[in-house]
Amino acid sequence: MPAQQRRTGPAAPPSDRVRLRRKRERGDYDRTVIDAILDEALIAHLGIADRHGQPYVVPTLHARSGDVVYCHGSTASRTLRALAAGAKACLTVTLLDGLVLARAAMHHSANYRSVMLLGEAKPVEAEADKLSALEAIVEHIVPGRWRDVRPPNENELRATSVLAIPIEEASAKVRSGPPLDDEEDYSLHTWAGLIPLASRAGAGEADPRLLEGIPPPPYVSAYRRPGAP
Amino acid sequence: MPAQQRRTGPAAPPSDRVRLRRKRERGDYDRTVIDAILDEALIAHLGIADRHGQPYVVPTLHARSGDVVYCHGSTASRTLRALAAGAKACLTVTLLDGLVLARAAMHHSANYRSVMLLGEAKPVEAEADKLSALEAIVEHIVPGRWRDVRPPNENELRATSVLAIPIEEASAKVRSGPPLDDEEDYSLHTWAGLIPLASRAGAGEADPRLLEGIPPPPYVSAYRRPGAP
Repeated sequence: MPAQQRRTGPAAPPSDRVRLRRKRERGDYDRTVIDAILDEALIAHLGIADRHGQPYVVPTLHARSGDVVYCHGSTASRTLRALAAGAKACLTVTLLDGLVLARAAMHHSANYRSVMLLGEAKPVEAEADKLSALEAIVEHIVPGRWRDVRPPNENELRATSVLAIPIEEASAKVRSGPPLDDEEDYSLHTWAGLIPLASRAGAGEADPRLLEGIPPPPYVSAYRRPGAP
Repeated sequence: MPAQQRRTGPAAPPSDRVRLRRKRERGDYDRTVIDAILDEALIAHLGIADRHGQPYVVPTLHARSGDVVYCHGSTASRTLRALAAGAKACLTVTLLDGLVLARAAMHHSANYRSVMLLGEAKPVEAEADKLSALEAIVEHIVPGRWRDVRPPNENELRATSVLAIPIEEASAKVRSGPPLDDEEDYSLHTWAGLIPLASRAGAGEADPRLLEGIPPPPYVSAYRRPGAP
């Protein structure tokens, strides 16, 4: 059984910067694979560097829509302002699927699906485009939610910075399957295998100030990630 | 009910770079809080920047031990080599605790606990120190596992780069509690509240090549994160 399940004909890396140099069997540049990981992940880690070369990595909600990934924040946020001014970005999402327990300490690992996206974020300026992006973000975290909420008003839109990173330089990295031990270690009397991990939603918890007689909608009571295994 | 539960007497920020400028009520510089988040999180996102200011954010396994966070990788890894050569790093871990469904689109959010750690990684060189760090990483992902595994040999140690980032410039950011809507929106007939999320372990899956008669150890069959709610 192959440790990394390969699809046939993976796409070529779009740039040298995202080409995997080590453990190439884990790399993939196929948009179908990349999009599925971006769509299932609830949060992204967004990296920017200051002029001294100090990187900052901040968690953020995101949404893919077609060929861009949106993120948003206050117009007062340092990160968002730096990005809107053209700072180079790296947006990474990671889905942790399990822990890999090998017989040898050094072959312990994790099964995961990750996407790294490099690029410059473009500010989304037009009001209609901003609204679409914010709808994409709300629908990304809770599909079906948008039609039930009070939409953003003009003041809120003005105070919100929305950025779009094009999906041009992106790579996926996937590890799946059982541990891979050195041949001589397979005779050890040590348990080896996987501990599967998944993010699970609990029962919805109503806001203490919720008006009486409003049941949780199906997108809350039956919440699950689209595409989750 | 306060949206962000504050402990009394939070510690002061250790540097201006990690001081929260916005939503300060979410910030914390208390080592107890920071350590608990680092210890519960299974993966970290490690950011470095190249000389052109392009950041790269990569997922990695980590472990806190006392006042440092360890991470490791192949000595051939570009990221590890850049870090060992003194590149500035940012290590961020994020625990996603739930989705926050407000009545207004713009007040949708996530409940999370996150730590951002800035610093320069120091290579761990001495063999005994490397071994301790690797033990910490294996014990971090599966407490109790180290005593059962074949320890690293000299070749493996030589091929492995271990780095320690001191916990000196670090901040925690925590959001908890129900949505916070604008006062006039509380009269809307819209369900509002939380969808709690947690990472859950499934039943251990034995390696297809596991020798017969080796049951999963308790740290597999009863796996849970230390400190997880």
